Amino acid sequence: MNLRQQLDYLFNPGSVALIGASNNLAKWGFHVLSLIIAKGGRPIYPINKNEDEVQGLKAYPSVGQVPGPVDLAVITVPFSEVPAAMRDCARKGVKVAVVIPGGFAETGSEGARTQREVMEIARQGGIRVVGPNGMGHFNTSADFFTVPYLPPVKKGPLALIAQSGNTSQSIVYLACEMGLGFSKYVSSGNEADLHFEDYMEYLGQDEETKIILGYIEGLKEGRRFFELAKEITRKKPVVIMKAGRTVAGARAAWSHTAALAGSDVVSEAAFRQSGVIRVEEVNELIDVALVLLGQPLPRGRRVGVLSAGGGAAVIAADALMGQRLELPQLSQTTIKKLDSLLPPRWSHVNPVETGGDPFSYSCLWALIEDENVDAALVIGGGGVTGSYAKWVSLPSSVSGQIDQWLEDAEVSELDDVDESVELMKKYQKPIIFANMGVPTPRRGKIYEKLQQKYIIPFLTPERAAKALAHLVQYSEYVRG
Amino acid sequence: MNLRQQLDYLFNPGSVALIGASNNLAKWGFHVLSLIIAKGGRPIYPINKNEDEVQGLKAYPSVGQVPGPVDLAVITVPFSEVPAAMRDCARKGVKVAVVIPGGFAETGSEGARTQREVMEIARQGGIRVVGPNGMGHFNTSADFFTVPYLPPVKKGPLALIAQSGNTSQSIVYLACEMGLGFSKYVSSGNEADLHFEDYMEYLGQDEETKIILGYIEGLKEGRRFFELAKEITRKKPVVIMKAGRTVAGARAAWSHTAALAGSDVVSEAAFRQSGVIRVEEVNELIDVALVLLGQPLPRGRRVGVLSAGGGAAVIAADALMGQRLELPQLSQTTIKKLDSLLPPRWSHVNPVETGGDPFSYSCLWALIEDENVDAALVIGGGGVTGSYAKWVSLPSSVSGQIDQWLEDAEVSELDDVDESVELMKKYQKPIIFANMGVPTPRRGKIYEKLQQKYIIPFLTPERAAKALAHLVQYSEYVRG
Repeated sequence: MNLRQQLDYLFNPGSVALIGASNNLAKWGFHVLSLIIAKGGRPIYPINKNEDEVQGLKAYPSVGQVPGPVDLAVITVPFSEVPAAMRDCARKGVKVAVVIPGGFAETGSEGARTQREVMEIARQGGIRVVGPNGMGHFNTSADFFTVPYLPPVKKGPLALIAQSGNTSQSIVYLACEMGLGFSKYVSSGNEADLHFEDYMEYLGQDEETKIILGYIEGLKEGRRFFELAKEITRKKPVVIMKAGRTVAGARAAWSHTAALAGSDVVSEAAFRQSGVIRVEEVNELIDVALVLLGQPLPRGRRVGVLSAGGGAAVIAADALMGQRLELPQLSQTTIKKLDSLLPPRWSHVNPVETGGDPFSYSCLWALIEDENVDAALVIGGGGVTGSYAKWVSLPSSVSGQIDQWLEDAEVSELDDVDESVELMKKYQKPIIFANMGVPTPRRGKIYEKLQQKYIIPFLTPERAAKALAHLVQYSEYVRG
Repeated sequence: MNLRQQLDYLFNPGSVALIGASNNLAKWGFHVLSLIIAKGGRPIYPINKNEDEVQGLKAYPSVGQVPGPVDLAVITVPFSEVPAAMRDCARKGVKVAVVIPGGFAETGSEGARTQREVMEIARQGGIRVVGPNGMGHFNTSADFFTVPYLPPVKKGPLALIAQSGNTSQSIVYLACEMGLGFSKYVSSGNEADLHFEDYMEYLGQDEETKIILGYIEGLKEGRRFFELAKEITRKKPVVIMKAGRTVAGARAAWSHTAALAGSDVVSEAAFRQSGVIRVEEVNELIDVALVLLGQPLPRGRRVGVLSAGGGAAVIAADALMGQRLELPQLSQTTIKKLDSLLPPRWSHVNPVETGGDPFSYSCLWALIEDENVDAALVIGGGGVTGSYAKWVSLPSSVSGQIDQWLEDAEVSELDDVDESVELMKKYQKPIIFANMGVPTPRRGKIYEKLQQKYIIPFLTPERAAKALAHLVQYSEYVRG
């Protein structure tokens, strides 16, 4: 079996056994089983020495006593029982094992010895192993999940490989919040057998995956990662958060997943040379995914800013320049166009401060048309009107008018969104939206549309600027 | 009249006239009036040339025709009508005028001429002027608001002076989200008369104000600011976001409020030497306010990290070191204590990775007692259990158990919060909490308690680390 076939068994097994299946709500083996049962779609075999039945299904004392074949075993028994469980799996001919418990190489030499023992059993039995010390995996197209405690995940273009369970939980949560869906996910744990690079190779070829996100503490096969990345980033973006970049961080990574964080300077150079987009914070993974999905690749780093508010314009300008993007001068033609569209008090420079909310969108076309502008950053709009309107203090005599006001605002904001998307397509220039800390309400028609088009406004100009800077850099790499 | 008396008239006027009062929902003069009426508490005089009555109150064609004295005039008429309105105010003996419209110095030489004209009228009439081109002000203890479109603001220790209306709106919103209250607020606009420094001097002496927040684009009296700051920061913290730090940002600041941003290197040095806490993003203003209110001042920069999750521990370590904080080695005594409290798989280094959620709080005392540790950063906990629990997929046979589980979790988390606050007090060391991107739910008993104690977990370790670094730096300044 080649790697692809092996990982097909992981992501879409014909049958699954859960070694450590439990009726006790406090156990991990409870939650994994109830999740697998809830999704259904394949034979499920709970393994439990002491129970005849677990969560309504017939249970077996060992995986060897399961009547049919077992493609995948999820192991949630305590650390000390893992070698015996793996021996059972090897005898049974299990293809892949997902080992959840910790206590192995990450805890020191004794744990490392047990880890080697377990791996030797797996190797001899021809079993590929995920983990140990991971949190599970999922595949939305097969509707198969072994990782509990996640918000509902929908099908979509992202794949995530993570060397930390709890961090990946946050990443998935943040993506779901933005309406993004996933193809596949794996928490790779200590990577005693299957490495980050194995999953990456597989996902690089996976047609359901359009963007690969990764959380890395240390790579086992740096050279292979680099070669794979060079190949994959030509077809699909790879966005990586590499932690353990400081001395204290690297020490923590060692005790977490026995990962050697390595020199951050070397990592940084390797990422850059292979077109990998490296981010610094967890939420940036999702920010970058959003611009990759929602925006065309910019042809340069010159950004036109549009803002109804002056403070926001200043902050946006600082943020863009802080990311080494440029704010070009507007052409004379653009200034003439804006003079005809905006009140006389408009700023007459880039950033364009329009002098009032209603004008921002009606002049966006003029800014995006400017040949000096490669992308636009628009502050405000995008569904926040409702947030402010609800705070308005109205005398009872006119309080009925507020509903009409909000309705009108919604219609007009929907038009603005449509028009922005049209402009983005027509000129093939990114148009990024950002708020000033006030989040776009997570409901209603505007939100649905923003989500569908991957253009939910960033919470701050700083986050928008960072995401755009990554997009520019990736574009420069891809265009050569 | 001295400055203090003048600003008392601004923040707590005996009577107020609104020049530009309107029945039209689309006008600024509508919202300011309805807000002042809703709060009540003093004679209110709508001024409108064409109406006998506005929003149910008798209206006057000019401020001169108001029967009683007028302490404060809020002017919302268009730019071109401001000189005439100010002339009326001067004749009437108005003490302070808040001028909302833009179109003045920020738009060029013609606007600057009108601004000079208006200021000359005010000066001759002995009127102090807020703005022009501002958004209003408020004083919670007098329940007096002239700035619309804000969420409900409660009384509290923060004051805000802002050289941008829209940005200050965001700052107030972010503070309210964290349960923080305000004493006073002013949007200072073009500062043609009253300067940032005037408000700062006043708030430095204001007993209701414990922390002064500021958004600055450019200072009119840099030397005075510096001298005031040196004095005030000995008594109360001053937290400043200074924008316009890049070339493009400074250009935007000029066209926004005619502010000269000046050299950022000079600003930075002045802030540092006068004990001002300078932040880089709008949300950091609130992050720093939270740690100032909730935490004792640390005696050093050595931070102990506690995390149930390994990835979070690595990220926290990187974030702290990125802010030039230190992660000290744990003392042998602490390691022994932790050995007795935690499962054997705990990390045995700082960051302390506990090896499971339930252990984080039960060992916090041991970490905070360590003489090598000046402050603790705790990742996880703080009310997020409920967020995860709601995603758990449960078979119907046991779904009743989830409520009990959540109830137990709440009781235990409440205890954890109490204990943390006790430890913080006992050892006089900061204990900062952070999540991994998943927000603490904004409801329930835990949230109330977290809010009351100013210890709502930061959304990310990076934000927590930044806030703590500011606290350390301020502490070093104050302690000399």
